[in-house]
Amino acid sequence: DKMKKVAVLAGDGIGPEVMAEAVKVLDVAQKKFDFTLSYDYADVGGIAIDNHGEALPASTLTLCENSDAILFGSVGGPKWESLPPEQQPERAALLPLRKHFDLFCNLRPARVFKSLTSACPLRADIIKDGFDILCVRELTSGIYFGTPKGREGEGPDERAYDTMAYKRSEIDRIARMAFDAARLRSKKVTSIDKANVLTTMVLWRQVVIEVAKEYPDVELAHMYVDNATMQLVRDPHQFDVMLCGNMFGDIISDESAMLTGSMGLLASASLNKEKFGLFEPAGGSAPDIAGKGLANPIAEILSASMMLRYSFGLDAAADAIDNAVEATLEKGIHTADIAIDPTRTVNTAAMGDAIASAL
Amino acid sequence: DKMKKVAVLAGDGIGPEVMAEAVKVLDVAQKKFDFTLSYDYADVGGIAIDNHGEALPASTLTLCENSDAILFGSVGGPKWESLPPEQQPERAALLPLRKHFDLFCNLRPARVFKSLTSACPLRADIIKDGFDILCVRELTSGIYFGTPKGREGEGPDERAYDTMAYKRSEIDRIARMAFDAARLRSKKVTSIDKANVLTTMVLWRQVVIEVAKEYPDVELAHMYVDNATMQLVRDPHQFDVMLCGNMFGDIISDESAMLTGSMGLLASASLNKEKFGLFEPAGGSAPDIAGKGLANPIAEILSASMMLRYSFGLDAAADAIDNAVEATLEKGIHTADIAIDPTRTVNTAAMGDAIASAL
Ligand SMILES: CC(C)[C@H](C(=O)O)[C@@H](O)C(=O)O
Ligand SMILES: CC(C)[C@H](C(=O)O)[C@@H](O)C(=O)O
Repeated sequence: DKMKKVAVLAGDGIGPEVMAEAVKVLDVAQKKFDFTLSYDYADVGGIAIDNHGEALPASTLTLCENSDAILFGSVGGPKWESLPPEQQPERAALLPLRKHFDLFCNLRPARVFKSLTSACPLRADIIKDGFDILCVRELTSGIYFGTPKGREGEGPDERAYDTMAYKRSEIDRIARMAFDAARLRSKKVTSIDKANVLTTMVLWRQVVIEVAKEYPDVELAHMYVDNATMQLVRDPHQFDVMLCGNMFGDIISDESAMLTGSMGLLASASLNKEKFGLFEPAGGSAPDIAGKGLANPIAEILSASMMLRYSFGLDAAADAIDNAVEATLEKGIHTADIAIDPTRTVNTAAMGDAIASAL
Repeated sequence: DKMKKVAVLAGDGIGPEVMAEAVKVLDVAQKKFDFTLSYDYADVGGIAIDNHGEALPASTLTLCENSDAILFGSVGGPKWESLPPEQQPERAALLPLRKHFDLFCNLRPARVFKSLTSACPLRADIIKDGFDILCVRELTSGIYFGTPKGREGEGPDERAYDTMAYKRSEIDRIARMAFDAARLRSKKVTSIDKANVLTTMVLWRQVVIEVAKEYPDVELAHMYVDNATMQLVRDPHQFDVMLCGNMFGDIISDESAMLTGSMGLLASASLNKEKFGLFEPAGGSAPDIAGKGLANPIAEILSASMMLRYSFGLDAAADAIDNAVEATLEKGIHTADIAIDPTRTVNTAAMGDAIASAL
């Protein structure tokens, strides 16, 4: 049976606009590659706070549980910025979803599209003809979820604390994902840590070295996180797969994404061991341009492609979508966020149309 | 009494070479500005491990205690890389020194030298005529020093953990340093945190907001650390003072340093509340070029200038050294690390001579 149920959580800001284009492209792909998706829409983030009083309502969570994958838009905006930190839509929607479904493996590709190298913020002689990095980030442990955390004491001695922690098994499973991914790419893993300061990262490095023994065909390097932020700027080509814990992955993946110059083009996948996943653009909800037809739908379309590839094993359809995106960009068609040729700028829907017809 | 005692810890790699040039420049400055320094040399880092069995021998620590400031070179190298993480020269020398002298305030300027804008890795239209950021990093608390930390359990459940923690008083004092510094610059503080995830960072943001009330003339912005690594690449001019905790400051200051394209030119100061301080180049010991006369002495010379300014209040002498460095670079004289004009390249000692005579 080829029918797959997709929970569509478009969220706030540009989320609904870009989601419409992803669904448009998925619809064409279904016909062409003979598979069937059913879409169930639910509220998440700020709109869920407005409609249901919480960023991740029980009804939305139930819908996700009954689905084969989650296609996510983006959440948050100025309307909800005055809420306390733990109720902010991004945190209150994303962190529980990641934990609930044990989505420990976050894949964040940061690649430069050939036709867009001139949009990269790095000097042309550094960027050359682009780079292609895959950040493999652990997503359900580390300092994001470690306990105890809290506040105690009063006055100047009041103290707040968090716990960074990793179990051997948690490091082992994410390391394997990184090495497996590297095998399908340029066969190099750079593990990012801070083993010179953090006890957690000493164990991290040990376990990564042990896992690497099972992948003698993959080259392994270790790099301190501070150095990694420098090396990304100095020479991004040295990286293939970057393996990171939760906190460092948050930082490294954002820096790499910005270095591509293509924030509106980058997708991500968050997977559990059953390959159930949440697929979302790397960028945010961009409330300043929401509703204006200015948003770039490519990140959402490529997230949909990652869903087909990683959760549904529909590699041919995923490849076709990726190629359609690339071909459309090569024709010089793009949205206004890409500062290449203002005369070729189209709106969100026209961009989706162009990709759908290239498919 | 104008006589000041300086503990000179040159360390490993290029440390001794660049230190010799800093002392050369300080000697000229003493004559010109009528103050007296006495230098006491001691081992630190790898050479101290070789000579005394530990990276920070008690004799070195005693010398520092009896001095008015520490001028530090750099430590570490391949010879000591196989030592366990906690015995690595960098960590085993620097962290105890920072803690012992309560050097909570780490100042890391990242500025582009006018004559060297073309060395920046960012596109010319982004870098424009340079940027000037001061990273104010908390250096004696946070996850670097939080307890408990350790390892427990066995097999796949073996777990390693660290504690990130801040007390209100610790945040308060570093925030004041940032606002004070901003008053002497462009009057803007951007506080870097991850208040959307970390309890420690919620307190961080609260205290920074409270301190800011006493500085109504200084603008305050908050930025999540992941976004900050992107914004540094996209538009470094938006920053004046970046206020960071220990871990995020490690990352942010290294990224900013690399963005200037001038790793061999950047100095740093680590101060306690009595203005006792440790002054060191931002770059490392560069063992690959050690002993070849290739190292750029400017970072060490500017660190010496920061010592005069921050520990000894000798602002006129510090200004003169800074200007001499700038003037020498403007003449087109530079070491080989600066990829501007290979025909004007000089060696370490000649660079020191040029700056000393510009003084
Ligand atoms: C919104 C926030 C909690 C989240 C994170 O820190 O993981 C975001 O920055 C991300 O990278 O997906
Ligand atoms: C060597 C290391 C312990 C140190 C740190 O992480 O603070 C270094 O990276 C620095 O920034 O001074």
